Amino acid sequence: MKRDCDLALQPQGQSLASRYSGRTVLAIGAHPDDLEIGIGGMLAKLARDGAKVVMVIASVPKDFEVRMAEARRGAEILGCELKLLLDGGPQRLEDVKTCDLVGMLDGIIREREPAAVLTHSNADFHNDHLLIYNACLPTQRLRYFDFFCFHPSMCRPVPTAFHPRVYVDVSDTIDTKMQAIKAHASQFRCRALSTDMYREFAHVQGRLVGVEYAEGLDVMRMLLA
Amino acid sequence: MKRDCDLALQPQGQSLASRYSGRTVLAIGAHPDDLEIGIGGMLAKLARDGAKVVMVIASVPKDFEVRMAEARRGAEILGCELKLLLDGGPQRLEDVKTCDLVGMLDGIIREREPAAVLTHSNADFHNDHLLIYNACLPTQRLRYFDFFCFHPSMCRPVPTAFHPRVYVDVSDTIDTKMQAIKAHASQFRCRALSTDMYREFAHVQGRLVGVEYAEGLDVMRMLLA
Amino acid sequence: MKRDCDLALQPQGQSLASRYSGRTVLAIGAHPDDLEIGIGGMLAKLARDGAKVVMVIASVPKDFEVRMAEARRGAEILGCELKLLLDGGPQRLEDVKTCDLVGMLDGIIREREPAAVLTHSNADFHNDHLLIYNACLPTQRLRYFDFFCFHPSMCRPVPTAFHPRVYVDVSDTIDTKMQAIKAHASQFRCRALSTDMYREFAHVQGRLVGVEYAEGLDVMRMLLA
Amino acid sequence: MKRDCDLALQPQGQSLASRYSGRTVLAIGAHPDDLEIGIGGMLAKLARDGAKVVMVIASVPKDFEVRMAEARRGAEILGCELKLLLDGGPQRLEDVKTCDLVGMLDGIIREREPAAVLTHSNADFHNDHLLIYNACLPTQRLRYFDFFCFHPSMCRPVPTAFHPRVYVDVSDTIDTKMQAIKAHASQFRCRALSTDMYREFAHVQGRLVGVEYAEGLDVMRMLLA
Amino acid sequence: MKRDCDLALQPQGQSLASRYSGRTVLAIGAHPDDLEIGIGGMLAKLARDGAKVVMVIASVPKDFEVRMAEARRGAEILGCELKLLLDGGPQRLEDVKTCDLVGMLDGIIREREPAAVLTHSNADFHNDHLLIYNACLPTQRLRYFDFFCFHPSMCRPVPTAFHPRVYVDVSDTIDTKMQAIKAHASQFRCRALSTDMYREFAHVQGRLVGVEYAEGLDVMRMLLA
Amino acid sequence: MKRDCDLALQPQGQSLASRYSGRTVLAIGAHPDDLEIGIGGMLAKLARDGAKVVMVIASVPKDFEVRMAEARRGAEILGCELKLLLDGGPQRLEDVKTCDLVGMLDGIIREREPAAVLTHSNADFHNDHLLIYNACLPTQRLRYFDFFCFHPSMCRPVPTAFHPRVYVDVSDTIDTKMQAIKAHASQFRCRALSTDMYREFAHVQGRLVGVEYAEGLDVMRMLLA
Repeated sequence: MKRDCDLALQPQGQSLASRYSGRTVLAIGAHPDDLEIGIGGMLAKLARDGAKVVMVIASVPKDFEVRMAEARRGAEILGCELKLLLDGGPQRLEDVKTCDLVGMLDGIIREREPAAVLTHSNADFHNDHLLIYNACLPTQRLRYFDFFCFHPSMCRPVPTAFHPRVYVDVSDTIDTKMQAIKAHASQFRCRALSTDMYREFAHVQGRLVGVEYAEGLDVMRMLLA
Repeated sequence: MKRDCDLALQPQGQSLASRYSGRTVLAIGAHPDDLEIGIGGMLAKLARDGAKVVMVIASVPKDFEVRMAEARRGAEILGCELKLLLDGGPQRLEDVKTCDLVGMLDGIIREREPAAVLTHSNADFHNDHLLIYNACLPTQRLRYFDFFCFHPSMCRPVPTAFHPRVYVDVSDTIDTKMQAIKAHASQFRCRALSTDMYREFAHVQGRLVGVEYAEGLDVMRMLLA
Repeated sequence: MKRDCDLALQPQGQSLASRYSGRTVLAIGAHPDDLEIGIGGMLAKLARDGAKVVMVIASVPKDFEVRMAEARRGAEILGCELKLLLDGGPQRLEDVKTCDLVGMLDGIIREREPAAVLTHSNADFHNDHLLIYNACLPTQRLRYFDFFCFHPSMCRPVPTAFHPRVYVDVSDTIDTKMQAIKAHASQFRCRALSTDMYREFAHVQGRLVGVEYAEGLDVMRMLLA
Repeated sequence: MKRDCDLALQPQGQSLASRYSGRTVLAIGAHPDDLEIGIGGMLAKLARDGAKVVMVIASVPKDFEVRMAEARRGAEILGCELKLLLDGGPQRLEDVKTCDLVGMLDGIIREREPAAVLTHSNADFHNDHLLIYNACLPTQRLRYFDFFCFHPSMCRPVPTAFHPRVYVDVSDTIDTKMQAIKAHASQFRCRALSTDMYREFAHVQGRLVGVEYAEGLDVMRMLLA
Repeated sequence: MKRDCDLALQPQGQSLASRYSGRTVLAIGAHPDDLEIGIGGMLAKLARDGAKVVMVIASVPKDFEVRMAEARRGAEILGCELKLLLDGGPQRLEDVKTCDLVGMLDGIIREREPAAVLTHSNADFHNDHLLIYNACLPTQRLRYFDFFCFHPSMCRPVPTAFHPRVYVDVSDTIDTKMQAIKAHASQFRCRALSTDMYREFAHVQGRLVGVEYAEGLDVMRMLLA
Repeated sequence: MKRDCDLALQPQGQSLASRYSGRTVLAIGAHPDDLEIGIGGMLAKLARDGAKVVMVIASVPKDFEVRMAEARRGAEILGCELKLLLDGGPQRLEDVKTCDLVGMLDGIIREREPAAVLTHSNADFHNDHLLIYNACLPTQRLRYFDFFCFHPSMCRPVPTAFHPRVYVDVSDTIDTKMQAIKAHASQFRCRALSTDMYREFAHVQGRLVGVEYAEGLDVMRMLLA
């Protein structure tokens, strides 16, 4: 689809690379597929541009082997390291206390010393996503990383009140993102759900900032040094 | 584009027709093209289904003849009556006091006895749009009409924090809407601006409620009797 | 009490009946009496006008027999079917995981195929009410029903920040509502609490839309087709 | 109407008198009747308890003699001093620049040295009320007075999103308030509008804090010394 | 540091003493040190001026003996009674159901009959703080006390969206507050964390209302009688 | 004052320089001194690091020569170009229509092609500041620049609800900022107002992100490419 904006208006060279290259970015999602849907394009771009990107999946509630295989494939496509927080088999996030979740996330923050943390937002409507958001909030006390929240991630469309403030140009990596989402066949193809809406949504987001495809982020804390 | 939602999930027969048929609906926009962009599909549908739809344009700031001709063509395509609030030539909304604007709108409310009023929202970023929104608010005291606000209407994309609560299925009238928008050639074709984004945006909105195309509305007041 | 508004200003014939008649409406409350207090007038009206109304009570925390008898009596007065989610005796909502609650509600959505779902709002201050609200949110992904939230339901008055957008005219059914509330004698008469405030509150709400009595709803998602 | 709350729960002796007695309170309304409707009970109580209460009316848009006579009668009933900001005949607030309004209000603040300022809120929907609210905001820089906003004042009911945080017990002065409102016959009796809703609304507000009648205030700034 | 505001602008004698003297104020914090950090200056002032101040600590998650000793020392410095909600040793708040927490807090409200309750706000980011806030909300139904929320209390600085509406002048008691915070040596000195930021923050808050040091509160409900 | 945070936690090398060096940044303030107070540290840093920074002052309401001299001195200290929007002598912003203001700002955007625009926020309480904010909003349609809002700028402290999302480290340029503020002697020294609060406030903001001094920004739109 041809974009109708004037080329002269397009933004130039403000690069993610220069911001996070050579540093660690932690993306923390409740379940496999959340990170691919929410920020797959951004993660692929960060990884390509030299950041160390760790995809942290909090838990796999069921179909452990199938979903872990999909998660590994998704992370591989995006070029990221995969880490499962509650490992050893299927686990439900609600069976873990928030204070224990915070403790585990604190451990990762201390070990990985991330320059940025990305997670679900409080505009999400899935309870496990909110649990992860709530557990990430206090980790901010340990280190002054940039802290961003991504759009509610869902397999089927539902209205939400998420309001992005920062947009990431993912025009280069939208195909990689779509491929990573499709790696989660148990969630989409096997349920006869199309993934078209993610591409279309990224295209509409892109229009708002003059690029072909974008992902929107809310900003909790960001330092311009 | 094929929609991927299960047919069994689709909403049924809750009809605008039964709500407003045989009654008057007032749509109030700041300038020509605002109503076509914001709610063209809804207005076409209402008109088709037997409502008396009045498109009130507050003012034409310049190029009076050209833009009025476009406005007339737009209203004709949608099947609506057109009314210019500040008539007799080009006028700027800011040159009129809000109390005078309210007085004029009060007059229309009293004369037309609308069942619904639709206008700009306070999430808009064009000052004239906000002036019209502010002038519509107090007209609510005169009559218990439904009061809805539409998405910020703009010729070029800008992020806004508009959050719809009601969605209107415009799958039947999206083509009519697009035609009515294109009637405003001075705003789009002559400026080499595409109108594709309106169709794409309606498609994304439609996904959220299981229809092909939708327009989103915020609700200020609505009675279910 | 005589209403002072001009008859000519009153809204006409926008009917709930035409919207939900012959279809299923699910009302989901945390405990017995919540639905009667929040939307008893609307439910009575829907049932009278031909909708299939199911009152889902999530749990009875104690006094199981007494409160279930009151709940049955309340539902009978309103003309609705009663369904207890956590059945078999007294249960506390907090003893059930949200993912299990969502699973149970998903089952009801799939079985009943509702045209509308009504539940507590996030402006409530009772934790069990918020648990139910949170568990209802993700059920929206399964089906495109209208989704409304009602005013915080409480036995004693407490300020809340609930802001209605849709009002339901319950002038015809306010007496039925009051009778259904009083069926919960263990909560009111036995605790020497009056129910007068519910009638008075509905009267004040009614003033805002020109009817004798009204109930206010927030709108999460609604389709005008 | 008998109130059903337990006497033992009722609040005790936290007195406006001890807070503002012997000091000046400025109430600033756009037009005659706004202050009576919004905070007539509070002003009567303050005046009775020894505060110097100045009712500032910004302007009289028309019917100057009639409305000024009503305003004087209203202030007399409440026991307050009356001051007209734009005097010398009918004037429209919009014909005065905000910077000039701020200048006039600054002058009053400097001269009267108020302990509290009360005015319209940003939840109001009348443009003149918002102009006054906006002009009062910067006067806060001159002096550390308590700054409160009152409920949108209107002759006919319209839904608003005003959310009170402080409630003033006006059980003793509700009759005085009603009498002061009725002094504005040109707005109510002559237009066949009843004033019942103000008493009823105060009664519902009172329920929220355990008194017979209350007025709600939003708090912009308040010092507990 | 010399304050640059004009003395003539300073607020006068609106006293906490006259509001709560001889009455009970309940301050409810999740853990030892929260109340000292959030409202230590206010509590010291209330106690000094004749209020009966009860510091309720919900739980001590670990290091029970050390932290209880620090809590006792903190309360002693502030002149307040100390009460541990979950006593008998280290306990985690998340191991208690909210309905049980509410039950315990209800018991304290009934027994102590407070004139004011102060607790964490919903702008906090520590899950235990939010649990306490949520459990305090419904206690409002039992009694018409003033209900205030204090700034997120934290050992290390994190941005939050807390917005105070009422400010308490703690110029007289800031040193007592600082001493009480330092009593929690296990949280500060032993972790090499300075407490300077609390004094600095109180100084900046004070500037906003013309006093040397202040603590900010959000207001959920307050009666001016 | 020694900062107590652990050096290991401090953020590294995410540089403004790499983002805006060699590009144009437009800072738009209502009057002389607003930009120095709001973002003086950031502007000095941008200019030092190679950005072309243009300080646009909308108008000088009075004392034209004195204040223009101060503005020139302020801009010189910060290393920025100064541009007066309404030139030729004292002018009041309210005497210009918003549509004309937008036209003038559009012209500057087209001519300067900024990579970022910084202006007042909608949390400000000075009417002229809000006029400028409103006039900047629609300029976003012309070009995809980053768009930031700064903290309400004021000569005397007043509580506001501004909530920053991005923080700029101004530790290197805080002294330059303070010097630039003091260049506005007519606003501070001549009125016996101290400027200490700006340094103190920047210090408190800095604590939140682990640097010595910071300025907070709200983010309307930002692209990470």
